Amino acid sequence: MSKLVIVGTVAFDAIETPFGKTDKILGGAATFIGLAASQFEVDGAIVSVVGGDFPKEYIAMLENKGLDVSSLEVVKDGKTFFWSGKYSHDMNTRDTLVTDLNVLADFNPIVPENYKDAEVVMLGNLHPLVQLSVIEQMNKKPALVILDTMNFWMDSALDDLMKVIAKVDVITINDEEARQLTGEYSLVVAAKKIMTMGPKYVVIKKGEHGALMFYQDEMFYAPALPLEEVFDPTGAGDTFAGGFAGYLAKTGDYSFGNLKKAIIYGSALASFCVEKFGTERMVNLDKDELFKRILQFKSLTQFDLD
Amino acid sequence: MSKLVIVGTVAFDAIETPFGKTDKILGGAATFIGLAASQFEVDGAIVSVVGGDFPKEYIAMLENKGLDVSSLEVVKDGKTFFWSGKYSHDMNTRDTLVTDLNVLADFNPIVPENYKDAEVVMLGNLHPLVQLSVIEQMNKKPALVILDTMNFWMDSALDDLMKVIAKVDVITINDEEARQLTGEYSLVVAAKKIMTMGPKYVVIKKGEHGALMFYQDEMFYAPALPLEEVFDPTGAGDTFAGGFAGYLAKTGDYSFGNLKKAIIYGSALASFCVEKFGTERMVNLDKDELFKRILQFKSLTQFDLD
Repeated sequence: MSKLVIVGTVAFDAIETPFGKTDKILGGAATFIGLAASQFEVDGAIVSVVGGDFPKEYIAMLENKGLDVSSLEVVKDGKTFFWSGKYSHDMNTRDTLVTDLNVLADFNPIVPENYKDAEVVMLGNLHPLVQLSVIEQMNKKPALVILDTMNFWMDSALDDLMKVIAKVDVITINDEEARQLTGEYSLVVAAKKIMTMGPKYVVIKKGEHGALMFYQDEMFYAPALPLEEVFDPTGAGDTFAGGFAGYLAKTGDYSFGNLKKAIIYGSALASFCVEKFGTERMVNLDKDELFKRILQFKSLTQFDLD
Repeated sequence: MSKLVIVGTVAFDAIETPFGKTDKILGGAATFIGLAASQFEVDGAIVSVVGGDFPKEYIAMLENKGLDVSSLEVVKDGKTFFWSGKYSHDMNTRDTLVTDLNVLADFNPIVPENYKDAEVVMLGNLHPLVQLSVIEQMNKKPALVILDTMNFWMDSALDDLMKVIAKVDVITINDEEARQLTGEYSLVVAAKKIMTMGPKYVVIKKGEHGALMFYQDEMFYAPALPLEEVFDPTGAGDTFAGGFAGYLAKTGDYSFGNLKKAIIYGSALASFCVEKFGTERMVNLDKDELFKRILQFKSLTQFDLD
């Protein structure tokens, strides 16, 4: 069992999908990452910030999942980061209605002293300089640093983003972002270019079309589980990343073969996340359900050659 | 080794992609299906029609691949079906520039007498009444009838199409067509609806995102091989179907487990098809190359669970 540092947002989300809408509910990249990673009973710490308006029950829930929240800073007179979005009918696109950075605007992440030797660092989607600060606080080179980011930072802070990309082992981005970052349409060519920027592993998230991992000249593909109903896609990418990071921290094996398994675990966890609004499904997920879904992934993808 | 009946177009194509453009070259659904199936040395017959302008060398090439062309009708004073299309920069959409039906307008398919007991029938994309006529000429119920069709027939001949769909074991259509046919966005729900129309197996082609097969409550997913360069997508869907049908005709095993393997073979063959213009890559493909690519699919998708 290795230690895992998770940095990312802990937030309020208000979500509207064709199935309904929510008031402010628990959200944020670090929340989804932490909930997914907690399935593996990892020794994980959440590095984030919330305002005085953030319910203590949420923090207690994260602690109950075994997550260290000593570096989840509470700014008493500040307000928690708030995001609101509305999904299209087919759930493939969404409009952001509100982004109130609030306490996130001045977030200065502090890695807990006893996690500065963590083997795995999961950098959730945040300003690249915040992500960089977390890497620089580690007093031992982590075995695996995983970066999640998005097109917003490519548009607004590309130089800073490139500095972070140079320092990570794994990058997870979606297909359009891989194309934007490299100017290459072919994901194979794009992944090769990204490897020259720093990461040894490139994980391309394709939403309902699954995920594709590149390493040297090898590729691995995991489908998304086809579902009868996708209720709310919010947090699916973070859940995928959290499952990936959590499985690797649990096993402490950073070989390509084990990263494949981590991709499958991440995909399986993401398939639960979308079944309910926000974090609801992830908070109530048990190991038996996860085990059964992993078997579904096996039957979905495995074949025997003569 | 089972017999295989293939009905579909044999045509001239003129293609423009970002990589170049061709004059009239060999194309057509039955051509691509036949070339893919011939990789398995099946006893296959092509039922189609061409005009007097169709080069004898093309017919000789198909014969050399072991395909029976006795029911490839040549209308001496007619012209061969001609299609011309231009692909967008990302190859994901194409505009049809010309469709000259020519001899196809009055095509009356004749299944050769010695193929009327074929175990596998592959109905390539054509007017549903032509497809129906082929089914009705069989004097023994085939073990497996596979239907490929497209949105054009859903728009223009839905009643006829539904009659064919009711009589087949396998349908292959793309994701948008599955949605159009059922009015359901979820492919899982759409596939269930299509099963109530007749087919036991529903194969959803997702282009660069692979293929998804549904059978009862089970699913199987095969990715498309990620490629550095897609040169010309023309015929990839037909090649997929031809590989699928050819593998099944060769093995004579119509179990779900064997259909999974057939999907992988179809996907592997389609990945070659797009590497050159038209049929060029398929005409020159050898078994060793196919075997190597099947191993790539294995390493792309297979993982070990503890």
